[in-house]
Amino acid sequence: MAIKTYDAYCDRLRKMKPNLYMGGEKVNRDDERLQGQKRIMKETYDRANDPVFEDVCTAESHLTGDRINRFTNIHHSQTDLLNKQMMTRLLGHRVGGCIMRCMGIDAMNALSVVTYEMDEALGTDYYPRFEKVLRHWQDNDLVGSCAQTDCKGDRLKRPHEQEDPDLYLRIVESRPDGIVVRGAKIDITNAPIADEIVVMPTRFMTENDSDYAVAFAVPADWEGVKMLVRTANHHKRKYLKAPIAELGDTEGFIIFEDVFVPRERVFMDGKGDPRQTAYAGFLALLFAHYHRHSYTGCKPAVSEVLGSAAALVAEYNGIERQAHVREKLSHLIGTAELVFAAGQVSAYRAERSPSGTYIPDEILTNVGRRLAGEEIYNEYKVLADLAGGLPATLPFEEDFFSGETGELANKYMMRNPKVSAENQHRCFRMIENMLVSDMAGVMQVAGLHGGGSPQMETIALMGRYDLEALKSIAKYLSGIEKDLPRFERPTVTPRAMLERFRQMYGKK
Amino acid sequence: MAIKTYDAYCDRLRKMKPNLYMGGEKVNRDDERLQGQKRIMKETYDRANDPVFEDVCTAESHLTGDRINRFTNIHHSQTDLLNKQMMTRLLGHRVGGCIMRCMGIDAMNALSVVTYEMDEALGTDYYPRFEKVLRHWQDNDLVGSCAQTDCKGDRLKRPHEQEDPDLYLRIVESRPDGIVVRGAKIDITNAPIADEIVVMPTRFMTENDSDYAVAFAVPADWEGVKMLVRTANHHKRKYLKAPIAELGDTEGFIIFEDVFVPRERVFMDGKGDPRQTAYAGFLALLFAHYHRHSYTGCKPAVSEVLGSAAALVAEYNGIERQAHVREKLSHLIGTAELVFAAGQVSAYRAERSPSGTYIPDEILTNVGRRLAGEEIYNEYKVLADLAGGLPATLPFEEDFFSGETGELANKYMMRNPKVSAENQHRCFRMIENMLVSDMAGVMQVAGLHGGGSPQMETIALMGRYDLEALKSIAKYLSGIEKDLPRFERPTVTPRAMLERFRQMYGKK
Amino acid sequence: MAIKTYDAYCDRLRKMKPNLYMGGEKVNRDDERLQGQKRIMKETYDRANDPVFEDVCTAESHLTGDRINRFTNIHHSQTDLLNKQMMTRLLGHRVGGCIMRCMGIDAMNALSVVTYEMDEALGTDYYPRFEKVLRHWQDNDLVGSCAQTDCKGDRLKRPHEQEDPDLYLRIVESRPDGIVVRGAKIDITNAPIADEIVVMPTRFMTENDSDYAVAFAVPADWEGVKMLVRTANHHKRKYLKAPIAELGDTEGFIIFEDVFVPRERVFMDGKGDPRQTAYAGFLALLFAHYHRHSYTGCKPAVSEVLGSAAALVAEYNGIERQAHVREKLSHLIGTAELVFAAGQVSAYRAERSPSGTYIPDEILTNVGRRLAGEEIYNEYKVLADLAGGLPATLPFEEDFFSGETGELANKYMMRNPKVSAENQHRCFRMIENMLVSDMAGVMQVAGLHGGGSPQMETIALMGRYDLEALKSIAKYLSGIEKDLPRFERPTVTPRAMLERFRQMYGKK
Amino acid sequence: MAIKTYDAYCDRLRKMKPNLYMGGEKVNRDDERLQGQKRIMKETYDRANDPVFEDVCTAESHLTGDRINRFTNIHHSQTDLLNKQMMTRLLGHRVGGCIMRCMGIDAMNALSVVTYEMDEALGTDYYPRFEKVLRHWQDNDLVGSCAQTDCKGDRLKRPHEQEDPDLYLRIVESRPDGIVVRGAKIDITNAPIADEIVVMPTRFMTENDSDYAVAFAVPADWEGVKMLVRTANHHKRKYLKAPIAELGDTEGFIIFEDVFVPRERVFMDGKGDPRQTAYAGFLALLFAHYHRHSYTGCKPAVSEVLGSAAALVAEYNGIERQAHVREKLSHLIGTAELVFAAGQVSAYRAERSPSGTYIPDEILTNVGRRLAGEEIYNEYKVLADLAGGLPATLPFEEDFFSGETGELANKYMMRNPKVSAENQHRCFRMIENMLVSDMAGVMQVAGLHGGGSPQMETIALMGRYDLEALKSIAKYLSGIEKDLPRFERPTVTPRAMLERFRQMYGKK
Repeated sequence: MAIKTYDAYCDRLRKMKPNLYMGGEKVNRDDERLQGQKRIMKETYDRANDPVFEDVCTAESHLTGDRINRFTNIHHSQTDLLNKQMMTRLLGHRVGGCIMRCMGIDAMNALSVVTYEMDEALGTDYYPRFEKVLRHWQDNDLVGSCAQTDCKGDRLKRPHEQEDPDLYLRIVESRPDGIVVRGAKIDITNAPIADEIVVMPTRFMTENDSDYAVAFAVPADWEGVKMLVRTANHHKRKYLKAPIAELGDTEGFIIFEDVFVPRERVFMDGKGDPRQTAYAGFLALLFAHYHRHSYTGCKPAVSEVLGSAAALVAEYNGIERQAHVREKLSHLIGTAELVFAAGQVSAYRAERSPSGTYIPDEILTNVGRRLAGEEIYNEYKVLADLAGGLPATLPFEEDFFSGETGELANKYMMRNPKVSAENQHRCFRMIENMLVSDMAGVMQVAGLHGGGSPQMETIALMGRYDLEALKSIAKYLSGIEKDLPRFERPTVTPRAMLERFRQMYGKK
Repeated sequence: MAIKTYDAYCDRLRKMKPNLYMGGEKVNRDDERLQGQKRIMKETYDRANDPVFEDVCTAESHLTGDRINRFTNIHHSQTDLLNKQMMTRLLGHRVGGCIMRCMGIDAMNALSVVTYEMDEALGTDYYPRFEKVLRHWQDNDLVGSCAQTDCKGDRLKRPHEQEDPDLYLRIVESRPDGIVVRGAKIDITNAPIADEIVVMPTRFMTENDSDYAVAFAVPADWEGVKMLVRTANHHKRKYLKAPIAELGDTEGFIIFEDVFVPRERVFMDGKGDPRQTAYAGFLALLFAHYHRHSYTGCKPAVSEVLGSAAALVAEYNGIERQAHVREKLSHLIGTAELVFAAGQVSAYRAERSPSGTYIPDEILTNVGRRLAGEEIYNEYKVLADLAGGLPATLPFEEDFFSGETGELANKYMMRNPKVSAENQHRCFRMIENMLVSDMAGVMQVAGLHGGGSPQMETIALMGRYDLEALKSIAKYLSGIEKDLPRFERPTVTPRAMLERFRQMYGKK
Repeated sequence: MAIKTYDAYCDRLRKMKPNLYMGGEKVNRDDERLQGQKRIMKETYDRANDPVFEDVCTAESHLTGDRINRFTNIHHSQTDLLNKQMMTRLLGHRVGGCIMRCMGIDAMNALSVVTYEMDEALGTDYYPRFEKVLRHWQDNDLVGSCAQTDCKGDRLKRPHEQEDPDLYLRIVESRPDGIVVRGAKIDITNAPIADEIVVMPTRFMTENDSDYAVAFAVPADWEGVKMLVRTANHHKRKYLKAPIAELGDTEGFIIFEDVFVPRERVFMDGKGDPRQTAYAGFLALLFAHYHRHSYTGCKPAVSEVLGSAAALVAEYNGIERQAHVREKLSHLIGTAELVFAAGQVSAYRAERSPSGTYIPDEILTNVGRRLAGEEIYNEYKVLADLAGGLPATLPFEEDFFSGETGELANKYMMRNPKVSAENQHRCFRMIENMLVSDMAGVMQVAGLHGGGSPQMETIALMGRYDLEALKSIAKYLSGIEKDLPRFERPTVTPRAMLERFRQMYGKK
Repeated sequence: MAIKTYDAYCDRLRKMKPNLYMGGEKVNRDDERLQGQKRIMKETYDRANDPVFEDVCTAESHLTGDRINRFTNIHHSQTDLLNKQMMTRLLGHRVGGCIMRCMGIDAMNALSVVTYEMDEALGTDYYPRFEKVLRHWQDNDLVGSCAQTDCKGDRLKRPHEQEDPDLYLRIVESRPDGIVVRGAKIDITNAPIADEIVVMPTRFMTENDSDYAVAFAVPADWEGVKMLVRTANHHKRKYLKAPIAELGDTEGFIIFEDVFVPRERVFMDGKGDPRQTAYAGFLALLFAHYHRHSYTGCKPAVSEVLGSAAALVAEYNGIERQAHVREKLSHLIGTAELVFAAGQVSAYRAERSPSGTYIPDEILTNVGRRLAGEEIYNEYKVLADLAGGLPATLPFEEDFFSGETGELANKYMMRNPKVSAENQHRCFRMIENMLVSDMAGVMQVAGLHGGGSPQMETIALMGRYDLEALKSIAKYLSGIEKDLPRFERPTVTPRAMLERFRQMYGKK
């Protein structure tokens, strides 16, 4: 069967060559500090094998007709997009937030559209190669990562203008059998525990930047790939075991030291080819777009997780019925609902691209993701507000169990007399994890920047939105123009953009 | 044909008995000050007769199969709800905001559900009566108003506790042939130019408030009905005619002086009947719900109208490309999109009630309407910000055309040299109307309170949302509970609520 | 005595040549529509003659030692600035907001500093001329206006680059006996009812813009000056006379048709003189600065006026004790207090310029004014929120007094049974004036833009604030720098700026 | 000399009896994990011994005339309050935020007022005892902590209603020679490294709660006192030593197991004495008030520290000149300035209490502290926004220095070519500490809750503010009242409150 188990995944990791570096040492993928994020991956395997979640967590491969993990699926309908979004939300509830496996498949969806387009317009043969890699992913239920963000050096300069040309990852050599690349990709969530890494361009590229127009996929332990790893985990629990405490993050700072990528794993090689180079920005944008649509699923889960903890602690604190508490909770709920609705309507309005892959609506996706980003710190504020100061001052777990202090600690932990001291302790211990930990900081930063910060979504949505069309309303109302045509929401659809690319760069 | 013309509507008004009072005088429905709102009604007739808008502005009657104006339609599918929402948005663009004809049909949709339920549960015969009145509306394309808000006197007291029992409208007598009612309904938009008025209860009623559990429909010039009318209109234009300047508002303060309503037009008569009385709150709430769903259509139009003017004036002021301007515009657009998406998803999740009428999702409808209300003043701020001070200081229109000052005024009006002085004048004159006028104030207040203020939506959504279910996430993550069932958004559906009513009040 | 009466002021207006144009006609200064703003001026005369307000509303002239109206005073101490701020707040309470007489004296304070500096640095003789005009103002208790804002045409171009060179007011001829100016100044509050108008440059000027570096003062009916006038007033009350209803606004769009200004009334003549031209921006900025400091007095009054109405209507509506109501009121109060505190500390930190005039702190003044501007629309929202929909739907006044409807209207107006129907009516009628009227729109726009919008304050404060100094904290904490010098708030003081000007442009 | 050194302080701690518990073990005050907060204390000693900071960091004892550390001073003038505020801000810059030594002296200031009042009104003799303890603090430059927050159990019940009567700290026995107390105080910052602990009541107490009306001071290692300690520290640096990395927090959960407090250290013993009990709430409130005034000094420093890091990273990222960046920075600056101005004006308006101690203005103090609390999460958002994702994904320090990866890590760290890789590393390492760490979480929670959350400040300020007086403006403007008396900001001063207490509880 194409859907694999968590154990099989761990086996694969165990077999990989050690190329991870942490705290000055080379470590292998069994390192204790990686277990937190692997625990999150576990949900993506367990639920795909769980009949209760089958409808959302699995899909039918358009390549083989097999039942596959939805994290390896290409969206071939609006329903696929709706299910992907719902899967992300449901799994998010179970892992306290980000499910950390979307980036790989979001990258693959973007590649499915763009490689097809390039082949059609330029006569390349990327799409069949892409399908081969995809099938490998589907058959083996691989965890993919997507490495997009370059170091970027001086942000006022384009890639080819940097003092050190390697500050964006680049093709140093293009040969018949493959390419050699050099550079680094940073901020890459889940890369240390991924099977494969998809490399994508980070921005639009001009003709002078053609060395930087590159996309490919390699196994995460590929020759020449080094990862500097940062992890974030919670204090290990001795007594009060709980899902929240087992979750963690890993981030990769991935260095490519003149890495050779064989031709069949290359999806874009712009070196000296301005036509391919033109597609770099489109690919960058389309990956971001799919990834932002994923956020319309996971961010509602984040709001709900925080809201759930806030509602529970409000109950334990006895303030649940106060007007200001309900007002604050209602805004966490409201944000979750609005962001999810934006993603859902994006799915309903999705368009089929010529490759068969569906592309969700860009304006709504960006509007939804932006709201989530704008609100994330405020949502943490609400949880902190309703919890009070205790999560930041809670004595360590052992002091609740030691002979000399345990009984006293539990005595003074009591609040609502109907709730046991242990459950009150559990509640505040969870909120400590959520608010006052390395992981909490990572979740805040990721909630703001993951998939692009609100600033980026504003740029993307204004790039798609046709203000001239909007102005027709005012021109009509003011009498500058005689009539108002039936107003269509003024947006440049993905289909229209593809068409434009074909016209600009197509074969002659 | 069931769809009528604006002229036919005006004819009907002309024939009505004068029962309007303005500025100390009795006036008839041809009064100049009522023309602004009638101009808005005109759009609802013209577009229903316009092939370009036919799909959204007309519907098929479920009673007769005839093509009818959608403003007289009962929603029999999700598509009906989606079309209603879209119609409201499209017409909103043409009238600079509120289309002012929703309340009647929103009331009728609520009545269709509740009268059916009462008949089923209590053995009454309201639904057939309701259908008869509805058919009259459909066949004649009537403009309906809905009179819900009572004076309410001391807001800390229930209706029957008021010093003056008339501060909520009440049944003073219930007879076999009908009822006699006394009281007043206030804040009733469009009532002065409506054909008919539907009266609805304003809140939940206890057994002691049974005199106040009343619903009925009467022609707007019915015996004993007096309306104190307030209007808001723009300064009349002499030279620069424009749609914006012709629009206006009317509001009715409707007094019922012991008005007799014949039985066939009564839809709820709770006097002495605690079972009927129990439905008063449900009817109040369901009207509010349909009306809030309407707002998810019109409020996006308001945001777009303001955004359109803001974008146009930013262009004329030459600041269109500045980052802060694009940021501000993007938030007007974002609010429009989020509110509309909330309403759309509400429609997609709508449930069929036993009467056949579809009820949109309550949580999303409230979340969407609330966001619109929270943002309305901020949206005006953005328009004022981008327009600068001129809308508040613009010399009167005539001074741009008089011999002594016209040439000078136009000379100094110039900004972008590619735009004529007249168009610049038109643009600022429109924004003056939007920002600095009685009508602007009305639109702000209506944007906040119409359909219920954000405070009310918070209460409604928290009333539907099941916080206990939400807490299950935190209980799982903290280890208080062993597992997390597949999380369904915790909401009390309308269908569940209807079922509860039947069980509580049904025939025995 | 130097302090005059309101009657004396009206007499002066009556004697002025008619040069006002409204609605296509030339009108004189007795026109009914100008009375609203004159009613506001009345407070500035009555309180200066009222022992209760003497301490804040009068001052001692530094020229003559006479007791003068503080609206004609040059600040010669921190106490002067504190009193000016307090006067503005106290009078603001009495006129429901803006006292509309600050701009003239704010302009004169700026002139006192800059003319002195120019004379010192450039050897001109502006300061004695300025003192002569000032003394005329003080002796006669004149109402001054300040005309700063130019038409500005295409905002992306500098004055000399405009297609029509007159879109900024300019010197067309500079002669020994005076200058001839052409152009227009727009958005000029109170100009139609002012005794004199001070003209100021609107921005920094480059050498090529030297024709536009001009400042002078003329009587408001001076030869060649034409004003297009816009007014905003409330509906006249017949029965319920109240201060709020009598207040109004006038705005002047002032056209200078080749106006000759005699040399003794010219304060800057940059034509062909790059050194004087360099001072244009400084003068523009310093006027804005004094005017923003005035806003730290009047804007707290605006917040308090809105908060006062909101608190009163909350009481009448019976919701005064609800948590959300107190929360909202507390934010109106909080904004008032913060803005006022910012202005007060600005005064405490004020520096004496070489002319003897005190200059308040720029960073705090801008921070305070900005907060007021950012909050203004939100403050209106709070009032609308607590008042409910009635202010927008309230029947006209006469209907509460006519035979046929008066009794009914009053009956149904009742809320709190302890408050008379008349007082409830008065309360809502006042809020109608505040929220739903031309004047309400003007107050909103003025609250945002008057003295410069928040955007302008951000630019001003960031222009004064030395970010490099701020960064020293981070450099120390991160170990980039070894120590942190005692941190002084990093700001360019007015004194430092004056010094720089002297060095750059001083006599050699 | 009364001002001591950091070494002397460490000596004192070393001599204390071990009564700290961490992670299940008893530890002494040399424990490594306590060093972070001791490092912060170091600043309070070093700067008091530093001539550059002498004016703000030292004071003259009103008891002895000696030069003392300002952290042991009772405010005897407005200048004292201004200096205290400024000291807090300046030291905050040096320790990246909270200086963590205010609570003790804030408690002592509150005690100085209330013990004096009690003695005057009730004939007790607390004030002389208080002075003796104070002198001990001053002479030895002691670090004091204040233990106010009780466990509070069920928040809907008063202390005496709790199921477990110990959930508020209480007097179990009152004897001639002293009292015996039982209970716990939680959330007590700095207690584990303090010399002494002042215990204060947490709220108003009714007559039935008289056992809970208690205040006293004891050494931190007093017989029967046990502290459960929680610490937060940054990852230890091996290579890039920096002040930020050395800072840390300790929090005490202090348990009093039938602790005997000798009479000369008791400041309130309400057991069975309703008159003393009445002062409990006043003391609680007054401590909160002094502590909030301290926040108007430290919170501006927090804003500036975050703003400084944000400005530095914006420079390093090359985005410093972008409009949105300057806008965001300007709001951090603006908040710092507004909060500080509020505290400054509070000091200028401070009133002398009969004890000689000055009490700052309550409304402004609360308004200022509230703004800081409302903005804290948003300020973290701005820093995260401008820094980008890297602080959350930065490889560990050692990987920048190890043979295999160091050179590569530094190569790819480069951004602005004018800034060394090390400094860029230092900058992001600092921001990692600020955003993604236990300590970051503690600072966020403390920024919200320390001294009371915004909710509490709203309650306090509305408790002092006289809404009736505010309403007089609206009553005048609407014509309900004939005139408006000169409006004084409507506030209940501390002096008035003291007077009321004397009248209510004074000796007869």
